[in-house]
Amino acid sequence: MRHHELLARLARPADTKLVLLVLDGVGDLSSAEQPRTALEAASTPHLDALAARSSLGRIVPVATGVTPGSGPGHLALFGYDPTTPEADIGRGVLEALGLGLTLGAGEIAARGNFATADASGRLTDRRAGRIPTEECRRVCARLEHALAALDGVAARVVPGEAHRFVLLLAGDGLSAALADTDPQALGVPPLAARETAPEAAATAAQVRRAVAAMEAAIADEPQANRVLLRGFSQMPHLPPMPELYRLRCGAFAGYPLYRGVAQACGMEVVPCGKRIGEILDTVAARWADFDYFFLHVKQTDQAGEDGDLAAKVAVIEEVDRELPRLLALSPDVVAVTGDHSTPAPMRAHSFHPVPLLLAAGIAFAEGEPGFDERRAARGQLGTLPSREVLGLMLAHGGRLEKYGA
Amino acid sequence: MRHHELLARLARPADTKLVLLVLDGVGDLSSAEQPRTALEAASTPHLDALAARSSLGRIVPVATGVTPGSGPGHLALFGYDPTTPEADIGRGVLEALGLGLTLGAGEIAARGNFATADASGRLTDRRAGRIPTEECRRVCARLEHALAALDGVAARVVPGEAHRFVLLLAGDGLSAALADTDPQALGVPPLAARETAPEAAATAAQVRRAVAAMEAAIADEPQANRVLLRGFSQMPHLPPMPELYRLRCGAFAGYPLYRGVAQACGMEVVPCGKRIGEILDTVAARWADFDYFFLHVKQTDQAGEDGDLAAKVAVIEEVDRELPRLLALSPDVVAVTGDHSTPAPMRAHSFHPVPLLLAAGIAFAEGEPGFDERRAARGQLGTLPSREVLGLMLAHGGRLEKYGA
Repeated sequence: MRHHELLARLARPADTKLVLLVLDGVGDLSSAEQPRTALEAASTPHLDALAARSSLGRIVPVATGVTPGSGPGHLALFGYDPTTPEADIGRGVLEALGLGLTLGAGEIAARGNFATADASGRLTDRRAGRIPTEECRRVCARLEHALAALDGVAARVVPGEAHRFVLLLAGDGLSAALADTDPQALGVPPLAARETAPEAAATAAQVRRAVAAMEAAIADEPQANRVLLRGFSQMPHLPPMPELYRLRCGAFAGYPLYRGVAQACGMEVVPCGKRIGEILDTVAARWADFDYFFLHVKQTDQAGEDGDLAAKVAVIEEVDRELPRLLALSPDVVAVTGDHSTPAPMRAHSFHPVPLLLAAGIAFAEGEPGFDERRAARGQLGTLPSREVLGLMLAHGGRLEKYGA
Repeated sequence: MRHHELLARLARPADTKLVLLVLDGVGDLSSAEQPRTALEAASTPHLDALAARSSLGRIVPVATGVTPGSGPGHLALFGYDPTTPEADIGRGVLEALGLGLTLGAGEIAARGNFATADASGRLTDRRAGRIPTEECRRVCARLEHALAALDGVAARVVPGEAHRFVLLLAGDGLSAALADTDPQALGVPPLAARETAPEAAATAAQVRRAVAAMEAAIADEPQANRVLLRGFSQMPHLPPMPELYRLRCGAFAGYPLYRGVAQACGMEVVPCGKRIGEILDTVAARWADFDYFFLHVKQTDQAGEDGDLAAKVAVIEEVDRELPRLLALSPDVVAVTGDHSTPAPMRAHSFHPVPLLLAAGIAFAEGEPGFDERRAARGQLGTLPSREVLGLMLAHGGRLEKYGA
């Protein structure tokens, strides 16, 4: 039996509130150039005190040595095995969610790049000179106009940053089993859309017609005169958390991608601000409405991606200052962790295990203050797959029946 | 390959004695209200000294966050994966084992409750006012008398405590795929026995006839005038430990449930007393007869269920005082652990990992005295599924071949 199936079988309702506070990319690295991690360098009196009566541990988002994207990192925290096909959120869908779009059932998303080809149709720049975002908006409008005449599918073109956009196709019986049209090389033409499974043959033909219509409309553009499509995908079919665990789930995230992933898991997405203080305002206002609260703080990851340890420390300290407001709501279980590590020295997501703090009345108390990577590695929870965090939260919240008699 | 299959493939005989000493529910909790666990609070000079030349670790009975019943907790210690269907010991069987009954092959057990219904047949009390146990015995005799006339099946009715009893049905081709007849509600009649799989249709009809005969016989009872049946089940079909591992296995447990589970695993059940001293008397007398000795101490769990830390500490200290007698038998491997945690503050089984001590000449010695949850969390064995304990015992007893050349 898979882990979430076992949990679902044992789940029972209870009058307890569970809070998952994700500090995106909070895990960090100790190295010669950066001896102290962000959590070690930050002054966090409230987190430290909470840790003394919490259990600590570490989580591995996908598998040992595997660096997760934001999608798998969060799906694992929500209890899903991110390596299974049904939890596979494609690149097109992720890009669409990141732009705040909602995908209908069966709708296909692809990540688009504008590119430049010469008169012979051979690619000279796969990113169209990284045209400005306003240019992208203008050319996208031309694409959408061209697609309006298309039969059989309804198309949307949504501009992203610089040369990036998202193409959405809705219609009957579409399949996302399509290969990328980006040849990943210069001096050759873009590839024609082609199915990777027989059931996608009709969709491939539709996409070829759509590409032809779009490229005809922008042939006169000096830079953005071709389109490259990647990551054709549909929304994953995840069993919804509220049904699996008999849990009213609310997502409090300031950035679209995380809202989208939460929505895909069946959570109600509550509009809220981007900083922890704003998020907590909204959580407090909606405290009666949910059993499970997913709170997402993005700025730790952003600072890590910038290689800015001081900024990462500042975000953690900001969270720490606001923590008493969260605790004042008297949640029964609070998990503080990340979806992955984003070590400042690496300026990127990494595979390093992520520290986890689990506060609850029946948590085995560490008995010593302090929350950081080193303490987490010695903690009572040990090192676990991220997808076991939800079960721990349910268990500490008295929401699981005993297994067997 | 599943873990027990791998071990079975590698198992070889050896002239070594392995002892599994289960302190039921020994794992405990450190919290603000109870800073020291039972193992931390107990004075255990012999266990402490043994720990210095042992490896420590922690075991997870079923899965992270999952609280096990006694059945799954023990099956895991005996090397079986408790989440597989063949290791599923139903509630009826467990209740029967707990009453010291032996089930024949194909025999069906159900847990019964006496209940009270009004003249219209609607339930007014699902526990028949919790009639005294003597009353239960008297009414059970009436049931058994009524069932003697039943064609096609041989029925046994065995009284339990208060309103509880066990119904056993033996006959050709019986199936336990039956739904409970307890509607779990008042104001409605009991449910008719119904199959949950087609092959149980004939058995369902037999059970309906049995229920009708029983209820006709007790219709004049003021309280216990109806029967509710739950947890229809048969003995699990587990490959026997002696065959799997070429190991003569003896069970030394003072309580019926644990004897029953051991028997289901193919162990020889040796009659013995309930306290560790009595158990060790019997073990010493039968030392030549077995390779693997399962010793079960129940009182740690009872104290935990009572929320009585002092009593739990006293049981652990009693075990510690007797430990030299066990060690004087010169076992090659001694594992001391629990089937689950029963933290005194929770007064119930819990999901917390269970400390494990593994003493053997080739155990990686911790080098420091002391055996408790915190030391176990830092121990050389790490945190393992309970079902890996048997493999560790076999390995430390020189009873596993090398895998591959």
